[in-house]
Amino acid sequence: MTDPRPRRIAALVDGLSAAHLDGLLLTGLSNIRYLTGFSGTSALLVVTPRDVVFITDFRYQTQVMEEVGDIARVSIEASSLWTGLWNQLAGLTSVKVLGFETAHIQHRDFQRLVEAGARWQWRPTADLVETLRERKDEAEIARIREAADVATRALTATLPDLRVGMTELQVAGVLEKALRDAGSEGFPFPSIVAGGPRSALPHARSSGRALEQGDFLLMDFGAEVGGYCSDMTRTVVMGTASDEHRRVYDVVRVANERAAVGVRAGMTGRDADAIARQYIERAGYGELFGHSLGHGIGLEVHEAPRLARTAEGALPEGAVVTIEPGVYRPGWGGVRIEDDVVLGADGPEILTQFPRELIELG
Amino acid sequence: MTDPRPRRIAALVDGLSAAHLDGLLLTGLSNIRYLTGFSGTSALLVVTPRDVVFITDFRYQTQVMEEVGDIARVSIEASSLWTGLWNQLAGLTSVKVLGFETAHIQHRDFQRLVEAGARWQWRPTADLVETLRERKDEAEIARIREAADVATRALTATLPDLRVGMTELQVAGVLEKALRDAGSEGFPFPSIVAGGPRSALPHARSSGRALEQGDFLLMDFGAEVGGYCSDMTRTVVMGTASDEHRRVYDVVRVANERAAVGVRAGMTGRDADAIARQYIERAGYGELFGHSLGHGIGLEVHEAPRLARTAEGALPEGAVVTIEPGVYRPGWGGVRIEDDVVLGADGPEILTQFPRELIELG
Repeated sequence: MTDPRPRRIAALVDGLSAAHLDGLLLTGLSNIRYLTGFSGTSALLVVTPRDVVFITDFRYQTQVMEEVGDIARVSIEASSLWTGLWNQLAGLTSVKVLGFETAHIQHRDFQRLVEAGARWQWRPTADLVETLRERKDEAEIARIREAADVATRALTATLPDLRVGMTELQVAGVLEKALRDAGSEGFPFPSIVAGGPRSALPHARSSGRALEQGDFLLMDFGAEVGGYCSDMTRTVVMGTASDEHRRVYDVVRVANERAAVGVRAGMTGRDADAIARQYIERAGYGELFGHSLGHGIGLEVHEAPRLARTAEGALPEGAVVTIEPGVYRPGWGGVRIEDDVVLGADGPEILTQFPRELIELG
Repeated sequence: MTDPRPRRIAALVDGLSAAHLDGLLLTGLSNIRYLTGFSGTSALLVVTPRDVVFITDFRYQTQVMEEVGDIARVSIEASSLWTGLWNQLAGLTSVKVLGFETAHIQHRDFQRLVEAGARWQWRPTADLVETLRERKDEAEIARIREAADVATRALTATLPDLRVGMTELQVAGVLEKALRDAGSEGFPFPSIVAGGPRSALPHARSSGRALEQGDFLLMDFGAEVGGYCSDMTRTVVMGTASDEHRRVYDVVRVANERAAVGVRAGMTGRDADAIARQYIERAGYGELFGHSLGHGIGLEVHEAPRLARTAEGALPEGAVVTIEPGVYRPGWGGVRIEDDVVLGADGPEILTQFPRELIELG
């Protein structure tokens, strides 16, 4: 496996030239990780056509040598990263006009640029690295694949332990332990475990509510491997499913399957969204599918591209996206079925290999 | 228990008058939660002496009614919160000069203020709500106390299950499940489980390394109850402690105990830090205690005040702070012992009631 970082930095430098920038200050930690490999939480990065300068604090001295190595000139600061930045920039001759990441810098730090950094001209930029990150290489897909495997193994280990009477928080505990046992480095987002009427809240958090016979139980969770995320959802029934459970579930299941099989690189995010949405609308549940179909996953659990009614852009080959239709009936319950799909040259491949048939527990 | 929100909003309005502002736009979610009770992740809040306006999106329609109720005029937006903001602001007569939170707004959104929001004058503000949040009321302390109890119960349940050969990720899984079983709503930060040489990295994450006989095992974790966090650390030895284990451990334990008993409201953060630091320095380990002594906890796991060499401010009565001295010997191992302490009128009270004596496991 060749080191992908020089290629990524070169692609960014191409983007800088096109934007008439002498360099870019990076403050977004996922973008910095993509370009350098650094997994810590305190860093600034400057990329110019001639130099790559990485600034962190003393706590990361050991880690930065292992992770960043010689891809960048590393500066370890005793106090403020910003003091280090001004010193490093002063050493870069012929760098006058610098971009900064408008979506990843707080106003407080932007003020530093225009005050202490007034020697340089600062231009807002958006998505210069995010666009590169949309297309995953083979090593990235391998990590997301492993994160998807960790998630499916964890769910397989969890289902036999679930009982009526357990609280959502207890279910989350069983699931999260199974994720750790399967090797997850962390939780990409707070697990959503929502039973009964709470499964109708698309953004529920787990609560102290106890599971009851006849509840839908919705579990939305993910794993992290090598910094890369998976994100999956399954909805099961506690006890015996009613006809209404089955009706709603099957609408979502078919919508999921059609979209997961039908999505293609080159299609717009809107057209991908429409595969599932039109099916749900024709089944009469369109009003109850209030969110978009999916989003990219990678170093972040929500990244480009989007699969949504308002997403006009074409989905790039090599993107990994979620397919997550849902139907939510307020006060009764909801179903979401979410898979992770690679948009390959030969069509989509589902990474979250876990049954989509309705499961009745206990 | 009277509703604390009107009092908090009134205190903020006093601060606005002092700053010659007609109102404040809040974008920091913890500040918004403090003032309104809203626990979701999508909201804008405007506070003026006459009006409190809360803006969120359709996903939170049910939740906002339960949580925010009539403390604010609630506006539910179908698409962009910012469109809602301009509409709501246009309805507030005599509001011309507005503050915004410089530490909680990305440059991208700041640009919206000066472009689409150019009708109003915008002034950066810092810490207007954070300062109010430093002093906890009884209900807040009760929640942090419960979060501390959840954390100590979880550790008690975890220790008997730990064995040489388990990976750090597996230990994290056992601990996190115990936190869920004890009622934790979430994880305030990624659990740090670090064994052997990795315990010397103050910002280690949990890894796939297996525990060995004679390892220090450092566990830094927290619980969340009613939105409020706890944060504690214990370090144990796998097997039998060596003399060197005991020597380093005892230095940290005494430093922890002196600081937890000696810290007082009214003292500067620097003087609090010095209680532990001077003891560690006199023991000859000053160079190996590289971070500060502690930080406030509350709705966030890191908030004001700070206990550090550079913290000149006085610690307010009612603050809840961590006391977390450590000694880290690179390549060998490290010890941190962290407790949560309320700074009461009659002195400090330790919330994380868990033994501080060295524990040898297995």
